[in-house]
Amino acid sequence: MKEHFSERLETLRRQLITMGAQAETQIASAIEALVTGDAVKARAVIDGDKAIDQLEIRIDEDAIDLLATQQPVAGDLRLLVSALKINADLERIGDHAVNIAEAAERMSKTRPFKPWVDIPYMAEIARGMLQDSLDAFVRRDAKLALAVCKRDDLLDEKNKSLIRELLTYMAENPALISACIEILGVSKNLERVGDLATNISE
Amino acid sequence: MKEHFSERLETLRRQLITMGAQAETQIASAIEALVTGDAVKARAVIDGDKAIDQLEIRIDEDAIDLLATQQPVAGDLRLLVSALKINADLERIGDHAVNIAEAAERMSKTRPFKPWVDIPYMAEIARGMLQDSLDAFVRRDAKLALAVCKRDDLLDEKNKSLIRELLTYMAENPALISACIEILGVSKNLERVGDLATNISE
Repeated sequence: MKEHFSERLETLRRQLITMGAQAETQIASAIEALVTGDAVKARAVIDGDKAIDQLEIRIDEDAIDLLATQQPVAGDLRLLVSALKINADLERIGDHAVNIAEAAERMSKTRPFKPWVDIPYMAEIARGMLQDSLDAFVRRDAKLALAVCKRDDLLDEKNKSLIRELLTYMAENPALISACIEILGVSKNLERVGDLATNISE
Repeated sequence: MKEHFSERLETLRRQLITMGAQAETQIASAIEALVTGDAVKARAVIDGDKAIDQLEIRIDEDAIDLLATQQPVAGDLRLLVSALKINADLERIGDHAVNIAEAAERMSKTRPFKPWVDIPYMAEIARGMLQDSLDAFVRRDAKLALAVCKRDDLLDEKNKSLIRELLTYMAENPALISACIEILGVSKNLERVGDLATNISE
C-alpha cells in the first residue's frame, strides 16, 4: 500500500511538471506570436488552453482521490495540498498566456512602433522563474525557491520601467495609445506569471 | 468524533465568511479612498492586508489539520479542498484591494478629470458577486452560483467600455495619460475580483 502510494505521488508530481512545461510553452508561443505578429500562432495558444484546463481537472481529481483513499498525514498531506495549490497557479499561468495571445491577435495587423526587446526579456525571466519554482518543488530545494522570489523584484522593476517608457510614447504620439495599452497589458500579465511562480516557490 | 468534526467544519466555514467580509470591506475602502482622494484611507487598506494574510494562513492550517486528523472522504473531503481554494482566492482579492489602494494613494494629489461613476459601479458588481459566491458556497446553492458567473460578463463589458472611453481621453489630452493608466489598472483589478468570485462560485 505504502509503495503504491509513493508511486502515485510520483505520478502526480510528473503530471505537475508536464502541466508546468505546457504552461511555459504557452507563454513562449504567445510572446513569439506577439513579436512576429503571427495571428495563427496566437490562435493556437488560445485553443491550446483547453488541454491545460483538462490537465488541471485531472490533477485535482487525482490529488483528491489520493487524499480520500490514502489518508496521508504530515509531509505527504502537505505535499498533496501544495500540489493542489500549484495546480491552480499553473492553470492561471495558462490563462495569462491566453491573455497575451489575445493581445497578439489584436496587434497582428499593426506594425510594431519599436522593437519589443523588453517583452521577450521579461518573458525569459518569468519562464525561468516558473521552471525553477517547479524544480524547487520537485527537488524540495528551499534555496532555489528563494532565488525565484528574488528574481520577482527584477521582473517588477522591468514592468515599471516599461510603463514609464510607454507613457512617453503615448504622450508624444496619441496614435500609439491603443498599441501601448496592449503592451502594458502584456507586461502586466508577465509580471503576474512571475507572481504565480513566486507563489509556487513559497 | 463526528459531532466534533462537523463543528470544526462549521468554524472553518465561518472563518471563510469572515475573511470574505474583510476582503469585501477592503475593496470598498480602496474604492472610497480613490473616489475621495483620501490617502490616509488608502494607506489603511494597504496596512490592513496583513490581517487577511494571517487569516489565510490560519484557515489553511485548520483545513490541513482537519484533513490530517479527521481523514474525511467524499463530500466532506471536497468541501475542505474547496475551502482551501476559496481561501487562496480571497487572499488574492485582498491583494487586488491593495493594488487599488496603491493607485488611490498615487492619485490622491491629482484632481479627478471626470467623476468616477463607472469605477464605484463596477466595484458594486464585484462586491455583490463576492457576497453571493460565498453565500452560494455556504448554502450550497448552485443556482445562486450560476447567477454570479453570469454577472461576470457584465463586469467584463463595463471594463471594456471604460477602456474605450479612457482611450478617447488620452488621445484628446496626453496630460491625462498617467491618470487614465491608473484608472485602467483599477478597472482591471475589479474585473479580476469578479473572475475570482466566479472561481469561488465554480
